Amino acid sequence: MVVARGTSDNAARYAQYALGMRANLPVALAAPSLVTLYKSSPLTRGALVVGVSQSGRSPDVVETLAEARRRGALTVAVVNDASSPLARAAAEVIPIHAGEERSVAATKTYTAQLTALALLTTALARSRAGLAALRRVPGAVARALETRDPAERQARHLARARHCAVLARGIHHATAHEIALKLKELAGLAAEAYSSADFQHGPIALARAGGLTALVVNPPGGAAARELALLTRKLRAQGARVLTLGPRAAGSLPAPRLDEWLSPIAAVVPGQWLVVETAVARGLDPGRPKGLVKITETR
Amino acid sequence: MVVARGTSDNAARYAQYALGMRANLPVALAAPSLVTLYKSSPLTRGALVVGVSQSGRSPDVVETLAEARRRGALTVAVVNDASSPLARAAAEVIPIHAGEERSVAATKTYTAQLTALALLTTALARSRAGLAALRRVPGAVARALETRDPAERQARHLARARHCAVLARGIHHATAHEIALKLKELAGLAAEAYSSADFQHGPIALARAGGLTALVVNPPGGAAARELALLTRKLRAQGARVLTLGPRAAGSLPAPRLDEWLSPIAAVVPGQWLVVETAVARGLDPGRPKGLVKITETR
Repeated sequence: MVVARGTSDNAARYAQYALGMRANLPVALAAPSLVTLYKSSPLTRGALVVGVSQSGRSPDVVETLAEARRRGALTVAVVNDASSPLARAAAEVIPIHAGEERSVAATKTYTAQLTALALLTTALARSRAGLAALRRVPGAVARALETRDPAERQARHLARARHCAVLARGIHHATAHEIALKLKELAGLAAEAYSSADFQHGPIALARAGGLTALVVNPPGGAAARELALLTRKLRAQGARVLTLGPRAAGSLPAPRLDEWLSPIAAVVPGQWLVVETAVARGLDPGRPKGLVKITETR
Repeated sequence: MVVARGTSDNAARYAQYALGMRANLPVALAAPSLVTLYKSSPLTRGALVVGVSQSGRSPDVVETLAEARRRGALTVAVVNDASSPLARAAAEVIPIHAGEERSVAATKTYTAQLTALALLTTALARSRAGLAALRRVPGAVARALETRDPAERQARHLARARHCAVLARGIHHATAHEIALKLKELAGLAAEAYSSADFQHGPIALARAGGLTALVVNPPGGAAARELALLTRKLRAQGARVLTLGPRAAGSLPAPRLDEWLSPIAAVVPGQWLVVETAVARGLDPGRPKGLVKITETR
């Protein structure tokens, strides 16, 4: 079970797929309100319960993890602040060593959370090949950081969108949710993430209604690459404007090639640039979004 | 673990809360692509795995349930068609007895799925009080069906929205997601469901960006009723148009009072009327949405 909120909840989505793909572990994303609002006490004896939080100070995440520990679960905190309440509540701590997050919106802490969860996955899968693959991640992230110019060109289109559907399949569900969340928080753009599978059986109606811009997240080497390329063509044929992240095609925002289970760590970076440039194009300061606070204080 | 897609996935959200509140069971919502796309085989021995599907014909739901059964899980199919592939793949079948769903969009099968999952919850919780409470559901649904006129009045506002945030807390997360999905499918309106807790720490930026209509789902007697009433006032103070489902206030769409764990079965009905009337106000035929198909054929 993974307990998280906001950006960290997208890291939890990543963990669900990474642990499923590499270690066959079924993963539940906790609903913290079950503990805080309804006072239930999940039967988590025998489970591994991982709390993920940048600050380690979200009260409902701390309370859910503490309740799981009382119930006999093995608890682990993935935190940036190893002296935070979440770290103190957990039996084990994995610090992400990301340093102070100077912007309000979490960015480097998100990629660092994914990396810590990938390390945990590799350990649980007892995989040496996994460790070797992890060593290729820093170079890929460095290349992904060089995408500001193409992101700025895509942002000119995205800034004029009325709303945006961010589409992905499988493990990049996490990437799509994180880009959509940041587009809302920093660029004030109504963006929603979908599984491309779910999107085609209902919400695709929005494309026909008009005014939809889609962003298809399809980094190189993905198991659903062909399916996503077909969806891109289908949406364009229906008149939707479609931006792409990943495929080697003219006008696409490039993403580096990595083993698919590690690809979300690098592929979100061009998406983060896209959000920055979309916010700027809409006259907003992405470093100081109005009204957001760093610590989620929900009980 | 619950396996589902689309509308049935919102029934799965309901099951996560109902089984958590009443039986303290931790519930994972399966990611079917782990099995179909990545060929992983979740370690589900000892687990109860419930497949939920109106048609019982979604290939990835069938495949995920079959793989769980091969792994030693106890499998149950909640289906409308007891001779469907999902029913055949499961060890046990709970038929929802809803009769033919004559519209393309699932409505009565959604409420019937929730009712079957509430019965399963009561059985697992070994609760006689739960059975007594269930007997009050049909009367509540009958009262909820009498809300077409107020729904038509609210729909006049909603039809003009650029996008809509459907907000709820706790178990009505399912209600919010189901109303948002139907607004997209049938009314072509960009609507997204949020936990009110998550919404306040990020996406609320959309209210400041303008053009947002919020629908707050807050049926009588909920544990978060006061928090949701405060959020309603806060959003209105920021200039957002806010519709409400539940609270006894002038202009609110009424929802009947029920024990909270059963309330989603009746509370979605005024929301379904709201979707019908919003579609009509936007010149669409909610009975025959363009381009939707009944069976989700994703692999």
